[in-house]
Amino acid sequence: MTQQQREGLAELRRLLAEDFEGLKAYLNEQHEADIGEWLEELTDEEREVIFSAMEAERAAEVLGELEIETQADVISDMDPEKAGEILDEMPTDEVADLLAELTPEEQGEILSEMEAEEAADVRELLEHDPDTAGGIMTTDYITVQAEMTAQEAIEHLRDVGPDAEAIYYVYVVDAVERLVGVMSLRDLIVSPPYRAVREIMRTKVLTVRVDQDQEEVAKTVSKYDLMAIPVVDQERRLVGVITVDDVIDVLEEEATEDALRMSAVTPDEEDPGATDFKASIWRLVKPRLPWLIALLFLEVVSGKVVEHFQANIPPGTLTLLTIFITTMAGESGNAATQALALVVRSLATGEIDTRDVLKVVWRELRVGAAAGIICGVVLAGLAFFMKGSLPLAMVVGIAIAINIPVAKMMGAFFPILITRLGIDPAVASGPFITTVTDVTSMLTYFGIATLILL
Amino acid sequence: MTQQQREGLAELRRLLAEDFEGLKAYLNEQHEADIGEWLEELTDEEREVIFSAMEAERAAEVLGELEIETQADVISDMDPEKAGEILDEMPTDEVADLLAELTPEEQGEILSEMEAEEAADVRELLEHDPDTAGGIMTTDYITVQAEMTAQEAIEHLRDVGPDAEAIYYVYVVDAVERLVGVMSLRDLIVSPPYRAVREIMRTKVLTVRVDQDQEEVAKTVSKYDLMAIPVVDQERRLVGVITVDDVIDVLEEEATEDALRMSAVTPDEEDPGATDFKASIWRLVKPRLPWLIALLFLEVVSGKVVEHFQANIPPGTLTLLTIFITTMAGESGNAATQALALVVRSLATGEIDTRDVLKVVWRELRVGAAAGIICGVVLAGLAFFMKGSLPLAMVVGIAIAINIPVAKMMGAFFPILITRLGIDPAVASGPFITTVTDVTSMLTYFGIATLILL
Repeated sequence: MTQQQREGLAELRRLLAEDFEGLKAYLNEQHEADIGEWLEELTDEEREVIFSAMEAERAAEVLGELEIETQADVISDMDPEKAGEILDEMPTDEVADLLAELTPEEQGEILSEMEAEEAADVRELLEHDPDTAGGIMTTDYITVQAEMTAQEAIEHLRDVGPDAEAIYYVYVVDAVERLVGVMSLRDLIVSPPYRAVREIMRTKVLTVRVDQDQEEVAKTVSKYDLMAIPVVDQERRLVGVITVDDVIDVLEEEATEDALRMSAVTPDEEDPGATDFKASIWRLVKPRLPWLIALLFLEVVSGKVVEHFQANIPPGTLTLLTIFITTMAGESGNAATQALALVVRSLATGEIDTRDVLKVVWRELRVGAAAGIICGVVLAGLAFFMKGSLPLAMVVGIAIAINIPVAKMMGAFFPILITRLGIDPAVASGPFITTVTDVTSMLTYFGIATLILL
Repeated sequence: MTQQQREGLAELRRLLAEDFEGLKAYLNEQHEADIGEWLEELTDEEREVIFSAMEAERAAEVLGELEIETQADVISDMDPEKAGEILDEMPTDEVADLLAELTPEEQGEILSEMEAEEAADVRELLEHDPDTAGGIMTTDYITVQAEMTAQEAIEHLRDVGPDAEAIYYVYVVDAVERLVGVMSLRDLIVSPPYRAVREIMRTKVLTVRVDQDQEEVAKTVSKYDLMAIPVVDQERRLVGVITVDDVIDVLEEEATEDALRMSAVTPDEEDPGATDFKASIWRLVKPRLPWLIALLFLEVVSGKVVEHFQANIPPGTLTLLTIFITTMAGESGNAATQALALVVRSLATGEIDTRDVLKVVWRELRVGAAAGIICGVVLAGLAFFMKGSLPLAMVVGIAIAINIPVAKMMGAFFPILITRLGIDPAVASGPFITTVTDVTSMLTYFGIATLILL
């Protein structure tokens, strides 16, 4: 919260305590996104008072700004009739998201208090998988017929124009609701009043299918710079619209999920950032523990490698080599992590695809060789300065010069490989790749030591 | 590229070779974003032919879809007069981005061929830092006066309506261009024709300052679900507009930068994903080498810790302990990376702020303790199975049970600390934190070994 927002919250608290009429006025003046942020800081009782101070339309705007769990809390504490009134004013996609948090009984009770048409739309939205186009689309959009004139279309818009602000495109459908064209509000306004919609509309319309993954939808909207994209069913009937603000939410959600997966955390769908501080320990540990245990077993493999070589190395030499184990393993992991992040992001933004594998691995080999030689010289110098042994300096220098390019190639190759296998490349997590490089770096390190020192 | 896009590219190549008239028609039919993707695969000469086959307006649409470096290539190979014609049809923000890639001489030559008003706008945009609101805004927007009626405003829009599709809001300014209100096209359309703009517009307008950082702009647009946001100067004069499609680009750019910083790669502004495969080795190594060398020195500190303890440990015991060094260091790093990613993302999305430090660290201590105890039991079992030594099993089990919560608290605390210091938390990179946990885990491991085994 900014200083200004903190002052706004203080004012809200003051009005809440002493001036109900002032509170009403204040809630109408402030931006709903700010009020939403303040409400997150208040108790359930205080929120109840605030919602009782707003008209249904305003309450709907403010409700839409709250975290989804808070929305559910507020609505389930409310009298179902009042809840229905407020939800009638909200976009249907937001209502569906909210109701999905409640029990089936609560859902039924509230839906029966809503307007029949709205309730039917929401019921349908609730059927869709939340990660698909159907799960993020809204049913609040405007359709016109191709036979109308521009003037008739504008009048139709004046008559039925829904409350939603986010109207940018007007969709043209035929008698059975199949999408035949699209025009922007601007196209409509700048056309002569008697021109037919058929002549104004564009007939090449980008659409998404209702069951398409939300990440693909976001990529399409972002690539073609759209303000909204229509959602169609298998018969190409228009069933919904996804607006760009929902796409931004998807992009943020996916960026969070990728960052967590890359760090060996399985994202918790309901609370990816684990910011529900009252969550049980088990719910907090669950997204992380399976990875930690799997990686623990893998780490032991690098220990087995060390153990294997130990048998043939005299104790004095082994003591010297031991000093540089963490450096060797850690630095290889660092080099691999750099390559991994570059490749995962380039795949995510579409800058490279899996057919670029050779180019990418060749780049990493060259970059790794250059960085490896420089780091090799530095580490050899450090080792010689610390222990005064030229053979030891040679071993650590050569080992790191080999380990860095090997690690970089692995960090680059792995995400491409698993993308080809149809797995999200972010799952080629940093901890996984650093654990694998622990194993390979121990092989190289002790292998070279055996060659040079024995 | 999808299968469909590859077929489109093949068709483009065929027309390019044998049917210039067919090529012209094809370029008008296909979506500009697709053509842009195909052009990236072609040679300079092929691109020249394609641009000669399009009218200026169409060429501008296609040009806008290319990578910025390719745009600069195309334009600087073109006759300045033709370049000027095409750029006249592009949004001014895209022209400015493109020209920024050229030499001052080329810029001057092309600007002198553009329409005077457009050229003046572009010159002004070129003055702004590319990472600020001024650097991403466009000057293509529509303003009306508060005294106009809805009908007059619509007629004004018909007259001056710029080519840009992305018109969603109409801005209301006073005589000296100060922003006094805003209305959506929808507000305008659904109003009675003779109502004054003054009565339709909303006077509370969210704005950004021209020198504000682009990341703050993106957060504001995303938070308030806006389609566009007006940019004002210090006197609150309207100087530009940022549309949501540019915000999506900023969000993707920032997500890439964060992912790279978290992985110890300094993002290269011109080529963050390092997908310019012809770049020199030096340009590829530069974003990574300084980190690798700095971390190498830090890794040696963990070696010094091991060396310090070695003096007091008998060779046989040391050999046993050595086997679990990579496990101890690696697993602590994994635990820290998980916590780091959760906290960095929660800070980025605004779900937590730095005042939540105690809550976050307390969460990580509890999660870490639970995960540590479980991993401790597993590792103790593995060690006992491998070496048959109960004291060794105790040492590794206890050490990992302590190291995991310590690592988690460090991974969580660090990004919050450096955010407070005003540094981007993504710079608390994964490799940095894993290198630090290498040091702390060696302290714990050999410390506990000294206590239990000696």
